[in-house]
Amino acid sequence: MSGPTVAVIGAGISGLTMSKMLADYGVEFTTFESSDRVGGNWAFGNPNGHSSAYRSLHIDTSKHQLSFKDFPMPEEYPDFPHHTQIKDYLDAYVDAFDLRRRIEFENGVVSAERRPEGGWDITDQAGRTRDFDVLLVANGHHWDPRFAEFPGEFTGETIHSHAYIDPWTPLHLMDKRILVVGIGNSAADITVELSQKAMRNQVTLSTRSSAWIVPKLLYGKAADMNYRTNPHLPLSWQRKVAQWGQRFTASDPTLYGLPTPNHKFFEAHPTQSGELPLRLKSGDVTPKGNVARLDGETVHFEDGTSADFDVIIYATGYNITFPFFDPELISAPDNDIRLYKRVFMPGFDDLAFIGFAQSTPTLFPFVECQTRMVAAWLVGRYATPSTDEMERVIDEDTQKYTGHMVQSARHTQQLDYFVYEHDLRTREIPAGRARAAAAVAR
Amino acid sequence: MSGPTVAVIGAGISGLTMSKMLADYGVEFTTFESSDRVGGNWAFGNPNGHSSAYRSLHIDTSKHQLSFKDFPMPEEYPDFPHHTQIKDYLDAYVDAFDLRRRIEFENGVVSAERRPEGGWDITDQAGRTRDFDVLLVANGHHWDPRFAEFPGEFTGETIHSHAYIDPWTPLHLMDKRILVVGIGNSAADITVELSQKAMRNQVTLSTRSSAWIVPKLLYGKAADMNYRTNPHLPLSWQRKVAQWGQRFTASDPTLYGLPTPNHKFFEAHPTQSGELPLRLKSGDVTPKGNVARLDGETVHFEDGTSADFDVIIYATGYNITFPFFDPELISAPDNDIRLYKRVFMPGFDDLAFIGFAQSTPTLFPFVECQTRMVAAWLVGRYATPSTDEMERVIDEDTQKYTGHMVQSARHTQQLDYFVYEHDLRTREIPAGRARAAAAVAR
Repeated sequence: MSGPTVAVIGAGISGLTMSKMLADYGVEFTTFESSDRVGGNWAFGNPNGHSSAYRSLHIDTSKHQLSFKDFPMPEEYPDFPHHTQIKDYLDAYVDAFDLRRRIEFENGVVSAERRPEGGWDITDQAGRTRDFDVLLVANGHHWDPRFAEFPGEFTGETIHSHAYIDPWTPLHLMDKRILVVGIGNSAADITVELSQKAMRNQVTLSTRSSAWIVPKLLYGKAADMNYRTNPHLPLSWQRKVAQWGQRFTASDPTLYGLPTPNHKFFEAHPTQSGELPLRLKSGDVTPKGNVARLDGETVHFEDGTSADFDVIIYATGYNITFPFFDPELISAPDNDIRLYKRVFMPGFDDLAFIGFAQSTPTLFPFVECQTRMVAAWLVGRYATPSTDEMERVIDEDTQKYTGHMVQSARHTQQLDYFVYEHDLRTREIPAGRARAAAAVAR
Repeated sequence: MSGPTVAVIGAGISGLTMSKMLADYGVEFTTFESSDRVGGNWAFGNPNGHSSAYRSLHIDTSKHQLSFKDFPMPEEYPDFPHHTQIKDYLDAYVDAFDLRRRIEFENGVVSAERRPEGGWDITDQAGRTRDFDVLLVANGHHWDPRFAEFPGEFTGETIHSHAYIDPWTPLHLMDKRILVVGIGNSAADITVELSQKAMRNQVTLSTRSSAWIVPKLLYGKAADMNYRTNPHLPLSWQRKVAQWGQRFTASDPTLYGLPTPNHKFFEAHPTQSGELPLRLKSGDVTPKGNVARLDGETVHFEDGTSADFDVIIYATGYNITFPFFDPELISAPDNDIRLYKRVFMPGFDDLAFIGFAQSTPTLFPFVECQTRMVAAWLVGRYATPSTDEMERVIDEDTQKYTGHMVQSARHTQQLDYFVYEHDLRTREIPAGRARAAAAVAR
C-alpha cells in the first residue's frame, strides 16, 4: 500500500512542520531546500539569501504563544528569544523528529510544471527532473523585498530592510541622515537601533498607513499572553472590545507624533515595540507621514515639508513569489492569492500551500494546524468541497478576516489564529472527513 | 548701601540658578567655574572632566517636571530632552539673564579658607586670592566617581560610568563580555546600549541593593506627569499608596530576574528605564546579585555562580567631594553631610550649599527653591534658627525623608521635592523672615 509521492518546497518553519507531520503520518515525501541548512528566514545570513533576519532580531511573539504544541521551547529560553535561539530550536526540532535525512539540501526547486494528467514535474537545482503526485508549497513569504514606489529619483543609497544586518552591514550607518519607510516590526526595530544616539544618526520614520504600536511587555509580562480571541464570539464584537481596551496599551501612534492609522485597533497586525514610543518621545526619531516625491537627496513629504537624506531604508514588506511556477499558471499579484482555508487552490487537487498567511499572533502554531489538515488530505481522511463551494468560502473567509480592513498588499493575508484554529479543528477537518468518507462510499 | 560680597563655586545647574537669583536680588557676586563653559554635568565632554554625560544620555525626568518655573523649556523640545538640549537650555538661560559676564571661566576655586573673623579667602586657578563675605558651594555631586569595593583583583579593564561616552569611547566595547555593576539610571542606560545585539557583547548586570524599575512612559505620556506628592498628607501614608499602586507600573525587578530590592517601592529613587525590562525579557542581559569577589578575569557572585569578563563598568554613583575645603573643616564621608534644609551648615553663618540632594523627581526646581531661601538670607530677609535648633531639625528631616530607608551612600541625600518645596515656601522661609525681623528689632 503506497500513498501519493509528495514534494515539499522549503525547509523553513512551514516546510519543516509539514515534513514532520508527513513523517508522523507515514507519507513518503522529499523536501527540497535551496540552502545548506534548515530555518529559512530564521537562518541568519542564510546563504540562499532568503533570511530577512538582522543581527538584533528577536521574535516579536513570546515563546508562550510561539512554541509548537508538540515541541515546547526550552524552559531557559527568555520570553522573546533571539533569532539564534529560534534557529537552535528549529534544528532541535529537525533532529528530534529525524527530519534532516528527508531534506535535499542545496537542491531547491527550479521549476514545478503541472502534468496534463495531474501531478508535477519537479526540476531541481541539480538539473534533475522527478515526478510527484502532490506538491506542497512552503517557500515562505518573507524573502522577496517589496519596495514602496514614489515619483522621482533618490540619489542617496537605498536598501530594503531585507538586506539590513546591523548598523555597519551592508551600509555604514553612522553619522548619517536616514529615512526609514514603513512601520512594521522591522521598521520599528531598525529605527530604534539606528536612532540610538551613540550612532550619531538623524533618523526619520515615514509611514503612509501608520500603525498601532503595542508594547511587548504589559504589566511586566509578555503582552501577547493577554491575547486570545474567543472563537465562539463574533470577531466584529471582539474587535470593538479590543478597540475600547487599546487605551490601556497606549498604542495610539498619534501619542508619539505619528499619523493617525488608516485602520482601527485590532483590525490589522499591530506593530510590537516598547522602544519606538520612547525614541519618539525622546526626540531621537522624527515622525513623518507619507513620502510625496523624491528629488536628488531631498525627500518631499505629503505634509509639505522636505528634508535631505543620505540613505533610505525601505521596510515595506515582502512579495509572495513562486519563482518555480509559470506565472500564467500560479502567481500572487499584489500578494493576493485565493486559497481555500489559506491552503487549497480551487481547481487543483494535487497542490497545497503552507504558511501563506499573516497570522495573529504568530505563524508557528498556525502552520502546525494547517499541516494537520494537509496530512489528513494526503491519506484520504480529508476532502475539499467542490470548486464552487471553495470559491464561495474563500469570499466568506476573506470578508471575515480582512473585510473590515483597508485593502493593501500588507493586509491581504491577515488572519486570526485562534478563530482559524477553532474553525479547522471543530468544523473544517470533521467536514472534510465526512466528505472523504462520502466519496469513498460512492 | 552695599551687601555682602558673595562667591559662588560652579556654573552648573546649581551655580547658575543661584547666580540668577543673586542677580535678581541685586547681590554682588562672582561665580567661579573651572571649565570654559557653563552646564557642569550637562556639558557633554566638559574639558574640566566634571561631566558624567554619555553620548546617548537623555534626562530621565520629563521636561514637564524639569523646567525652571521662570524659564520654561521650548515648546518644540521632546518630553525627554537629550543632553545637548539641556545644555542649549542652560546656555539660553544664562544669556536671557545676562549671567555670562558674572562668571569667571577657567578659573575654578582651588582653596576656600575660612578666616578667623568669618568670611572666606578664596584662591582661584589663576593663583589669585580674594576675600568674600559669603561662600555658596554649588560644585555638584555627580562628578567624583564612587567605586564598589570587592575583595580580590580583576585583571580585565575597569571603568566607571563617569568615563563612559559610547560603545567605542573610552574602550572598544564590541564582542566583549561586560559586567555592569549598579542599577541606577546610568547603569540601566549603559546596559541597554551595550546589550543591543548589534554590539555582539554579552552583558551581565550585577546589583547588591536592586531597585524598582519604573517606565519613562505610562499610558503614552511621560510617567512622571503622574507623580506629585501631596505635602498636606504624611509621606508615610503616600508611600503606602504608591506601594500598592506600583503593580500597575510593573516596576518589580523580580519580574525580570533581578534580585528583590532591599527597600520598598517609593522609599528610594527608582530607576527609570522602559528598555531594561525588555532587554532582560529578551535574554540580552543576564541579571545577577552582588559580586562576592574578583579573581583574575573571573567574577564570583554571591549566588555561588561565576563568569569571566573582559570589562567591568562600575555605575556605582558618585562621592560628594569638596576639593577646595580643608577636609578637617568640611567633608562628606560616605556622602553624609549634615545641612539644615540641605543648605546651611550649623556653626557657619557665612556658608551655604546649593543642590546637595537627590531630589525626587528632579533637581532643577528643587535648586530653584533652595536659591530663593539663600538669596533672602543674603539680603537679611531670612535668618537661620539657633545651632541647636538646626541640629534638631536636621535629625527630624533626615527621619522624614530617609528614615524608612536602608542606610547607604546612595540614599543619604534622598528628598521629596514636593514636600520640600511646600515646607520652604509655606513654613521655613516665612519663619526665617520672622527670625530675621526679630533680630533686627533686638
